[in-house]
Parts: sequence; C-alpha cells; structure tokens
Amino acid sequence: MAAAAAAAVVANGASGDSSKAAFAEIYSRLKEEMLEDPAFEFTDESLQWIDRMLDYNVLGGKCNRGISVIDSYKMLKGTDVLSKEETFLACTLGWCIEWLQAYFLVLDDIMDNSQTRRGQPCWFRVPQVGLIAVNDGIILRNHISRILQRHFKGKPYYVDLIDLFNEVEFKTASGQLLDLITTHEGEKDLTKYNLTVHRRIVQYKTAYYSFYLPVACALLLSGENLDNFGDVKNILVEMGTYFQVQDDYLDCYGDPEFIGKIGTDIEDYKCSWLTVFHQYERESYNKLIADIEAHPNKAVQNVLKSFLHKIYKRQK
Amino acid sequence: MAAAAAAAVVANGASGDSSKAAFAEIYSRLKEEMLEDPAFEFTDESLQWIDRMLDYNVLGGKCNRGISVIDSYKMLKGTDVLSKEETFLACTLGWCIEWLQAYFLVLDDIMDNSQTRRGQPCWFRVPQVGLIAVNDGIILRNHISRILQRHFKGKPYYVDLIDLFNEVEFKTASGQLLDLITTHEGEKDLTKYNLTVHRRIVQYKTAYYSFYLPVACALLLSGENLDNFGDVKNILVEMGTYFQVQDDYLDCYGDPEFIGKIGTDIEDYKCSWLTVFHQYERESYNKLIADIEAHPNKAVQNVLKSFLHKIYKRQK
Repeated sequence: MAAAAAAAVVANGASGDSSKAAFAEIYSRLKEEMLEDPAFEFTDESLQWIDRMLDYNVLGGKCNRGISVIDSYKMLKGTDVLSKEETFLACTLGWCIEWLQAYFLVLDDIMDNSQTRRGQPCWFRVPQVGLIAVNDGIILRNHISRILQRHFKGKPYYVDLIDLFNEVEFKTASGQLLDLITTHEGEKDLTKYNLTVHRRIVQYKTAYYSFYLPVACALLLSGENLDNFGDVKNILVEMGTYFQVQDDYLDCYGDPEFIGKIGTDIEDYKCSWLTVFHQYERESYNKLIADIEAHPNKAVQNVLKSFLHKIYKRQK
Repeated sequence: MAAAAAAAVVANGASGDSSKAAFAEIYSRLKEEMLEDPAFEFTDESLQWIDRMLDYNVLGGKCNRGISVIDSYKMLKGTDVLSKEETFLACTLGWCIEWLQAYFLVLDDIMDNSQTRRGQPCWFRVPQVGLIAVNDGIILRNHISRILQRHFKGKPYYVDLIDLFNEVEFKTASGQLLDLITTHEGEKDLTKYNLTVHRRIVQYKTAYYSFYLPVACALLLSGENLDNFGDVKNILVEMGTYFQVQDDYLDCYGDPEFIGKIGTDIEDYKCSWLTVFHQYERESYNKLIADIEAHPNKAVQNVLKSFLHKIYKRQK
C-alpha cells in the first residue's frame, strides 16, 4: 500500500489530530526497510508475500495505540512542535506497537478460529495463507526487534526499550494462556469464571500492551526511568481493564458492520464481562479520574486523561 | 520432570562427555524460575500447564546444541575446568538454545501438520492442547528473554546476546517463510526447486540457530566481539547446511523408530536434498576441513572441528 493509502486508513480512525498524518507517512519507510533487510536474502516471491502480509495485518486498524505514543510524547514535553527526528522516533515506536498488535491478532484469530477481523477475513483464512500465518506472526514480532535495532541501537534507552517490549509481550502471552485454558474447548464450565480470574485475563491480555506500552515508550523517549512511574503503570493498566470490559460488551451488543468483526465470545464461553458483573463502567471511570487527579505531575495527568477520554463512551 | 529424569533424557543423547550432567542439572532451576516469574500472577492450572509444556517440548531431544555451548566455551578458554558461575552461565545459554529449538519445533509441527516429534505425538496433537500450542510457542520464545534478562542483565554483552538471539530468530523465521511459500500447499511445482533456493532455505532455517548460535554464545561469554568472527560464522553456516542435507536424507531413508519421527517431506514436496543433488556429502566435508585448517586461532579450530566430527556420518 502506498503512503497515501496508509494515510487514508489511519485517517479513518477515531483518534483525531495532527499526529495522524505524520504517523501514516512513516509506515512506508519502515516497511521498505523490512523488505531490504540485509539479514536475509529474499526472493521476489517472499518480498511480495511480506509486503502484502504487512499491509493486510499492520494496517486496517484505528492506530490509536501507535498515535498515542506521539500524543503522549508531546504532552510530556509540553509542546506540540517536535523536531523531524523526534517525530520519526515517536512514530517508529508507535508503529512497533501496531506491529505487535498485528502479531497478536494474527495468532489469536488462528487460536480462536475467528472469521473476520477489521472488516475483512482473518489473515489465516485468506486463500493460500492458512497456517503459514503462524510464521507470519513470528515475522511480525521479529520486525519489531529489527526496527528497534536499526533506529534505537546506541540510544541510552535501547536496552530498556527491548526489555519493555519483551516484558509486555510476556504478560500478554501469559494472559492469553490463562484465557485459553480457562475457556478450554470441551471444558464448558462456567464455575471457573470468577472475578479474580476475569480481571487477571483482561489485565494481562490487553491492558499492558494497549495502555501501558504507548505511554512507557513515550516516557523512555523523554529520557525517563520507568522505575519511577509505577503509579502511572497502575492507572493505565486499570484503564485498560475498563477498556476490555467495553470490548466484551461491544462483542455482544455492538453492530458487526460497525465494529468490523462478528463476536463469538458467548459461543466460546469466554470469561466475559457479561457473565460477571454490570455497574462497573461508571464506578471505574470515577475511580480513574480520582487516581489521575492525585498524580503530582500535570503533564502526566494530561497524558492519562487524554487516554481516558479517548475510550470513555466509545461505540467501537 | 525432576532433575534426575532430565539428566537421564540428556544422557541418552549422542554428545558424550562431562558437560552433560552439569547441563541437565540446570534445567530444573531455570524451569522453576519461569514458574515463579513475578511478571505474571499464575493460577495453579496455568502453572501446571507450563510445567508440563516445558518438559514435553524442551526435553526429549539430544541437547547437542545446548551442550555445545559449554564444550565450545571450554575449548575457547583452553581448559576443562570452569567455575561454578561460568558453568551456570554457559549451561543457561545452552538451555536458551534448547528453548529456541522447542519454540521452532512446536510451531513448525503445526504448520507442517506433522504427526510425531522425538518419538512422541507432536505437542499440538496432545489432547486438550490443539492450537493453544501456538501460544505455548510464543511463551517458549518469551522465556528466553526472561532468562537472559534475569541472568545476564548488567553483563557488558547483554545487548549483544539479545541482538544475537533476535537476529538468529529472524533468519530462521525468514528461512521458514521461504520454505513454506516454496513448498506451498496446492502448488506442487518442482520447477521452483533449484539449488540456490534450496541452499538458502537450509542455511537460514537451520544453520544459523543450530551451528552458529551455540558458538556465538560461547564467544560472547568469553568476552569476544562477534564482529571479529565473520569467518567462523561462515564456516559454521556451511557446516549447518551440510547437516541439513543429512537431515533431509535421514527423513527419507532413516528408520522412523530410530530417528523418532515419521518423515513427510516427499509428500509435502519439500525442497529436499533428494530432488536436488547427490555427491555433495564428501565434497562438503573436505571443503570444511580445509577452511577450518586455514583459521589462525587453534582454539577456534578445535571448536569447529568438534562440531564437524559430531555430525559427520551420523545415523540420526
């Protein structure tokens, strides 16, 4: 896909400001670099495969996670004007999160035997792809390491970036394991679904990579030490839990045309919010606002509030 | 599996010397650390799952790759006596390679729709596992990052170790992609199998992680800069190509009881050695010996020769 098409895809998303155009532009460059990676001697066929696989899976989402790296970075710096280099680095980290998301979705759809994703057939359902999609998932994950190495090796926070992505990936995969074995095919036992297990699945499977990771990337880019931001991590993970509750709700009650996928959670006996509790939404929002306003740093408060307001009362 | 059982598994392998016992002993410790990883709140069920998954997939091989880290390190240092700390670190890197191998095998078996592996059903064929095996593969890969972070963070070569594993994984996944799209289901077209593509698949898919990676780990542990060992890399990759040719040969002509799996390469129209050339084995051996003897460093020569003699004329 050309940069213009990528830009159109991103612009159709929900997150609205000037960061979007800058973000979309970077995609083509990163893709080209992956296709020219000297670490492998590609054939024409494998180049075409990867090109198509990236467009199909990395694009097509709202890119909220990716764009929020730039937005968060701007808020942390207290400016709307970034240098070309800063913009590029923030966008690149944002795309790494989009690549990570693509990797999870490609593999999750195989494991859940899903039909559609972002309004199109799941990648493994595309003719001639099938279970090659497993290896494509691995390649997506590997691209993140390649991108980080190419653009961040030598930065003082390079190791922290790698460790961050590794830790978040591990938490996500562990949450996914818990989800898979709790909702095990053939074990349709609702007594296993309790609040503690439900929260744990949601928190690990979604919240770390969707909410904590973008802000953590912005913090590292700002030269901060993540060890000093444990409270921010907790608030974002809490927010991510709330987000997933919405997602479970929309899986049941959202319009398939509008949310871009056909929900299967009920059939799959997912440990879903609907089987668990109900008045949580408003309570969660109020608690998050209180936690955020207790934070001493105003710029950090802005980052956290912008996240909360992007997700509150969303329809998709 | 208890340490004794792990030791028995390892001792049944082909590689024979004192490194084996030390190596086997470390497995239980590393597994325990993974099960106690504070980065995730495990349930009893998920702990049992991972425990069983690790024993099933990480153990059961000959551990040649893992043990060769210790053997190589000893040869590079020119001593058979290592400190407790050195032994532990070398064994840990060896196990990281065994974890990497397990990760590749679990996912490859799914993609190849294989039946058996190491004399038992492939992991995804175990009742109640199925496609959860995809996520288990991811967890195996993530364990490597967790192990490296726990035991090597702070070492001057920590970044180099991470970059090494990432690069080798990327090359392997790229080789696997080439193999998968060349031998694409439904495209039974032998004209695509030519020597160049065959060599490339073999080299990337097997040689880097099986031959280069163990020696590169030993070199990093010895404080060496890998940039100075390009020639060693080339020889090992060449040796790995030769090894894979044997593997393809054994897939057809080896005794299934003895090699521990039922070959499906002919059915799958793999770009296999049998469809390509024949007198290669002896020529390759002679060339490798000549290359190795041209190397200026005697300790490095010893490492390379020990590799070559482990694989030459093997039956499984």
